[in-house]
Amino acid sequence: MRVVVALGGNALLQRGQPLTAENQRINARTACRALAPLALEHELVVSHGNGPQVGLLALEAAAYTEVEPYPLDVLGAQTEGMIGYILQQELGNELPFDKRLASLLTLVEVDADDPAFENPTKPVGPMYTRDDADAATGKGWTFKPDGDGYRRVVPSPVPQRIFGLEPLEWLLDRGCVVVCAGGGGIPVMYVDEAVPAGRRLVGVEAVIDKDLASALLAIDLHADALVIATDVDAVYADWGTPEQRAIRRAAPAELEATAFAEGSMGPKVCAACMFAERTGGAAAIGSITEIEALLRGEAGTTIALAEVQAT
Amino acid sequence: MRVVVALGGNALLQRGQPLTAENQRINARTACRALAPLALEHELVVSHGNGPQVGLLALEAAAYTEVEPYPLDVLGAQTEGMIGYILQQELGNELPFDKRLASLLTLVEVDADDPAFENPTKPVGPMYTRDDADAATGKGWTFKPDGDGYRRVVPSPVPQRIFGLEPLEWLLDRGCVVVCAGGGGIPVMYVDEAVPAGRRLVGVEAVIDKDLASALLAIDLHADALVIATDVDAVYADWGTPEQRAIRRAAPAELEATAFAEGSMGPKVCAACMFAERTGGAAAIGSITEIEALLRGEAGTTIALAEVQAT
Repeated sequence: MRVVVALGGNALLQRGQPLTAENQRINARTACRALAPLALEHELVVSHGNGPQVGLLALEAAAYTEVEPYPLDVLGAQTEGMIGYILQQELGNELPFDKRLASLLTLVEVDADDPAFENPTKPVGPMYTRDDADAATGKGWTFKPDGDGYRRVVPSPVPQRIFGLEPLEWLLDRGCVVVCAGGGGIPVMYVDEAVPAGRRLVGVEAVIDKDLASALLAIDLHADALVIATDVDAVYADWGTPEQRAIRRAAPAELEATAFAEGSMGPKVCAACMFAERTGGAAAIGSITEIEALLRGEAGTTIALAEVQAT
Repeated sequence: MRVVVALGGNALLQRGQPLTAENQRINARTACRALAPLALEHELVVSHGNGPQVGLLALEAAAYTEVEPYPLDVLGAQTEGMIGYILQQELGNELPFDKRLASLLTLVEVDADDPAFENPTKPVGPMYTRDDADAATGKGWTFKPDGDGYRRVVPSPVPQRIFGLEPLEWLLDRGCVVVCAGGGGIPVMYVDEAVPAGRRLVGVEAVIDKDLASALLAIDLHADALVIATDVDAVYADWGTPEQRAIRRAAPAELEATAFAEGSMGPKVCAACMFAERTGGAAAIGSITEIEALLRGEAGTTIALAEVQAT
């Protein structure tokens, strides 16, 4: 079976934890311990989020005034390096020495006309107080309320095309575990300039949603299953109300009427539905620690077509 | 022919240029334009330095005081992401669309007892004035004189083993250009702790010399040639004196008596000699813009065994 597992930024960092390297390593270790059995049994592709991390790198870059801060595509690439390294190292430690692993940088095409550029929704970096958010708007950053505070939000265009699928396939065919498409991939787009490749590919100031990118990746790779691992144990209906209840199994059509939080559960449900609809396979959303049960449909929320559901 | 090209940090940034993303992209574009013909004719592996970049990320991290700065292995991984992305993108633009490229994160084992940990020599980051260097020693950083100023120096242990050679071979076998071992690779070492892999692999606070790592990579990959591209056109004898002269061709033994600058030309010559001695192949040192002539032994400095030299 070919499985794509998307690790939430929150699977790498618990809510409210300081974003130290050590905290990320400890959480990555827990995640990788849970992933290791899958790596031995299945063809495994691991993607990951980068919201807290890319926001931190932007803050660090802004704090050092000698060099102009790098654009979000370059910062995103930095997070692919950093998180890919930690995951590859920790997953390697949890697997027999002869199991091969590779981390690939992934470029993902977005549409220059995507409405996301006019309406930033993707939260990055830490929580801000109102005063801190007001002060930071001077950097040209946009903030939106999130829980008890504010978070910086950036454009999150829809991923249109994952580059580099063939090298990824070649590695999977050899039994290699691949970490890729980190942070939803590095956002790029074409501009009209004649180069040997045809048109020139350039970076884009955005952060692609990692769940949508992972779903596209899973579809393109003809994966049998997509698992979206996060810090809640399932998708909930009426979340945050006295009536909240975990959804154990649903068809995409059943979830369409439900509103889930933008930049949080919303993209996860949307990504899972997209995978289920386009492939007929099952997508699961739930806790990383229950990943084997998730894959068997025995924990979390399984999203699959009604036909599949009936079997 | 299988060729490993090591791009100097200075092939990505001209001396004295501010380390902006734009400057790196412009220099990367020039380098990639020169590399493109090689990618079409040979099996090509591209490695790169990260001295200026890893130093900048350390400065940025130190400037933002809310989160403890990340260790050098994590910062090195960030530079692999950032520079690997820029190189892959710009090289892709210079090649036909159907030419495949991949950027792999590379972990490199070092020895915990390497004397480099007691004697840091690898320059990272920008030039400092004496006063700025004095002020920054408060961060626990070490500085050494370099040209007219000072630079931060960090431990640069000898690379002992490149991890991930098999995935790299699989990609090369398919005609894929691979960017890897950036910044000399991410330094790691084993510690005695039982894990499924045997012993636990952990990160190390160091920056491996990219020329030595590239030579080891070229040896392990059974490359036919190693090209070390930098911002000078050749290795010079008596550099900086009225008697300075370019060395056009030399056997490793002939260079052993000559002293070259630590952290600069020294490791390049050492790496080229190591490759020539261990493989019988030729290593070339010179300007990225002359790379095709370098590979033919018609520009720069070619280092090869005397027997090879005579043919």
